[in-house]
Amino acid sequence: MNYRMVFYTVGRMLKVEAALLVLPLITAFIYGDSTIFSFLLTIAIIVAFSMTLTYKKPENKNLFSKEGLVIVALAWLLMSVFGALPFYISGSIPSFVDALFETVSGFTTTGATVLSSPESMAKSILFWRSFTHWIGGMGVLVFVLAIFPQSDTHSMYLMRAEVPGPKVGKLVSKIKLTARILYLIYICLTIIETIFLLCGGMSFYDALLHSFSTAGTGGFSTRDAGIAAFDSVYIKVVISIFMMLFGINFNIFYYIIIGKFLQAVKDRELLVYFGIITASTLIIALNITPLYSSFSSAALDSYFQVTSIVTTTGFGGVCYDVWPAFSQAILILLMFCGSCAGSTCGGIKIVRVIIIVKAAMRELKRMVTPRSVSAVKLNDKPVEKEVVNGVGTFMLVYICVFAASFLAVCAFGADITTSFGAVTSCMNNVGPALGDIGSSGLYNTQALGTKIVLIFDMLAGRLELFPMLVLFSPSTWFKK
Amino acid sequence: MNYRMVFYTVGRMLKVEAALLVLPLITAFIYGDSTIFSFLLTIAIIVAFSMTLTYKKPENKNLFSKEGLVIVALAWLLMSVFGALPFYISGSIPSFVDALFETVSGFTTTGATVLSSPESMAKSILFWRSFTHWIGGMGVLVFVLAIFPQSDTHSMYLMRAEVPGPKVGKLVSKIKLTARILYLIYICLTIIETIFLLCGGMSFYDALLHSFSTAGTGGFSTRDAGIAAFDSVYIKVVISIFMMLFGINFNIFYYIIIGKFLQAVKDRELLVYFGIITASTLIIALNITPLYSSFSSAALDSYFQVTSIVTTTGFGGVCYDVWPAFSQAILILLMFCGSCAGSTCGGIKIVRVIIIVKAAMRELKRMVTPRSVSAVKLNDKPVEKEVVNGVGTFMLVYICVFAASFLAVCAFGADITTSFGAVTSCMNNVGPALGDIGSSGLYNTQALGTKIVLIFDMLAGRLELFPMLVLFSPSTWFKK
Repeated sequence: MNYRMVFYTVGRMLKVEAALLVLPLITAFIYGDSTIFSFLLTIAIIVAFSMTLTYKKPENKNLFSKEGLVIVALAWLLMSVFGALPFYISGSIPSFVDALFETVSGFTTTGATVLSSPESMAKSILFWRSFTHWIGGMGVLVFVLAIFPQSDTHSMYLMRAEVPGPKVGKLVSKIKLTARILYLIYICLTIIETIFLLCGGMSFYDALLHSFSTAGTGGFSTRDAGIAAFDSVYIKVVISIFMMLFGINFNIFYYIIIGKFLQAVKDRELLVYFGIITASTLIIALNITPLYSSFSSAALDSYFQVTSIVTTTGFGGVCYDVWPAFSQAILILLMFCGSCAGSTCGGIKIVRVIIIVKAAMRELKRMVTPRSVSAVKLNDKPVEKEVVNGVGTFMLVYICVFAASFLAVCAFGADITTSFGAVTSCMNNVGPALGDIGSSGLYNTQALGTKIVLIFDMLAGRLELFPMLVLFSPSTWFKK
Repeated sequence: MNYRMVFYTVGRMLKVEAALLVLPLITAFIYGDSTIFSFLLTIAIIVAFSMTLTYKKPENKNLFSKEGLVIVALAWLLMSVFGALPFYISGSIPSFVDALFETVSGFTTTGATVLSSPESMAKSILFWRSFTHWIGGMGVLVFVLAIFPQSDTHSMYLMRAEVPGPKVGKLVSKIKLTARILYLIYICLTIIETIFLLCGGMSFYDALLHSFSTAGTGGFSTRDAGIAAFDSVYIKVVISIFMMLFGINFNIFYYIIIGKFLQAVKDRELLVYFGIITASTLIIALNITPLYSSFSSAALDSYFQVTSIVTTTGFGGVCYDVWPAFSQAILILLMFCGSCAGSTCGGIKIVRVIIIVKAAMRELKRMVTPRSVSAVKLNDKPVEKEVVNGVGTFMLVYICVFAASFLAVCAFGADITTSFGAVTSCMNNVGPALGDIGSSGLYNTQALGTKIVLIFDMLAGRLELFPMLVLFSPSTWFKK
């Protein structure tokens, strides 16, 4: 393995983190928070550490699949460790594991939290917390690709490892340009949401932070009660719609911008995505209407909760714990499903679900008429066999990691339902869960060991399993 | 499709069922039960029905994969419908769906029951109930193959569809002989267990019925309290050991009989099977010791429960509901895992789990060193690519059926835990579950819809998904 290049690239990425930390530092100045020192110290530590990594430019700049996976995993892990420092140094979160949990939850856009009353936190700390969602949503390496010069073939390995979905396509011939286009769309949508929320009477601070959370499909709120704290149908609807938008593959937005509207709306994954949201919203609304004063109020909460879960955002505000089991079961399946590949969402991704169902149907067909050779098709094009097998393997690895985590969390004392819910929620980067954790997504009472397992699960889920597994696989580091 | 041949073979199979019903009829005579008429009427109905199916011998005797799947699914479904008649006609189970549930649970060797007090039932009815386990364990079609003349290539399709596991191998060159050897081993082991139980002070009736249940890895007992009713360490140990034996691939016994002892004990699946049992027993025993008076009594219950669950027998007798979540979590994973392929057990089967884990490891290796081309190996031989992909597809279909069933059972009003437990238990043919159903495996309070979903799941699980799906797939019956 090209260690020099791995550490060099990770160092670069950490520099970006140090630069991004200037924003909460400014926030601390504006609001006169006592956290200025914590941010300054964190920035100093990161700069010092990254300097040692990037001190000498590597001569051999070759990066391959293995290096790409290790860089991404290591970068995300170190970014989280350093990102946890402001919480820890400022004393906002006294336990370092808790601070790490919160930061990993932020970067992976999970939204699971250990803070029972965010209102009592310093404004700059909350800013950093929500900002991690925004950073993690699009991915730091995509950002690095967008601003640093790098050869295209090498960048592709990095992008593949960080961007969710079974297959990563370049929008334009240059990776750098692709990354810039993605970030531009991301920034524009965030600004538009902020404006919409301002129109609903939110303060600029709240509007910006909730836009960060929505854009990254994270779920951290500035209030303990989540979106319910604002008590506004307008805000609920705006956030629901934007959650839905951020669950769409960003390529679709690009197609729309360059005028290829037809290609955008014919995308099979997008159609299934809207189909799932519509169907789930209607079914749950009908199921929960008896608990509400009217069908329309039930439908509103249903729409909010469905988009919140399917995009794996997980904003609090609707207490689904009291809903009938059928509605909860739909939400659990939506957690696994997730939204479109190439969005900021977690979960298995709809395109994988489509491939799974189609592969299963094909197998069934092949049993009935063995001589028929039919490929799995998507958007009228046959899906490469390698991709179909890749989805199969992904699922097998997913099951293994899920089962091991479930067992481990139970071993640390959680009951069956809580453990199942927590692992489902964290591996799919959702936030809210079942049982003791429930719809609030509050993990502060969980055992230390549980939190460490879930930290791994959140990172494994966000990076789609393989980078984390490769990082912790002995054969990566030791030659036989 | 060759309809004539399908119906003809199903008809033959039903004739076997009619013949097998003579045994409970004799039991009814012996004990002077009032159920004689019910059995006679059932036999008459089956004979009349099967005569119409087998009236004319089909000229075209060709059977292919599709016909094999349809025959097996249809045979099991009809066998269950007719097998439910004695329960229904005698009034032992007043609801036909309940009677069907009990029969399907019997034939599929699940052991889920609607009878809260089997003690109050007629002896002949209980005999038939446990006997269905024994019939279903080895499979009726294997029986048909053993006694009726049939060409080898055609038989293979039938055997493949009924015998559990990713791959069916012939023990000897002739299928008919293979089927006879399997049944001979099955009968011998059942007789030996009966003798052992008699030595423990059980009545002949109880010993025989519990041997039927153990052999089929079913789990029906003659007592409400299950094995605990006999209050004997000896009986618990004997049943545990025999459960473990019936979880072994029957080919292993054949190898031992013909003296290929080394080939038997080197089998990788067998080693993993014993490893899983040993590890689970020890871990659970340590975990539950605080609830028991001594480690040895905890270990006994742990061993009993582990073998009962991993072989998907599901005998009652140990109330694991009060065990810590960690022990319960292990049991849940064991339910999915199941025992060896080619045994009478349900579940995913250990060989598939091995292939899953190995395929996942290989993928990980391939990511680290992409140029290495390594096949998944089992018993030092590379596993055919087709088999590995087959396991992948099996898992994808399994996930789809599981998710749909889970949602459906929730829709019929069960809570999340109960629904998850019931579907897990029935799809893996275990019996006991979680939540409202719990370790007793008593399903009588579940909704009618839930029972129908679970009937499908039990059959789908026993026949390893595809036969049931092909039977209910419109393309099987209608040409485009």
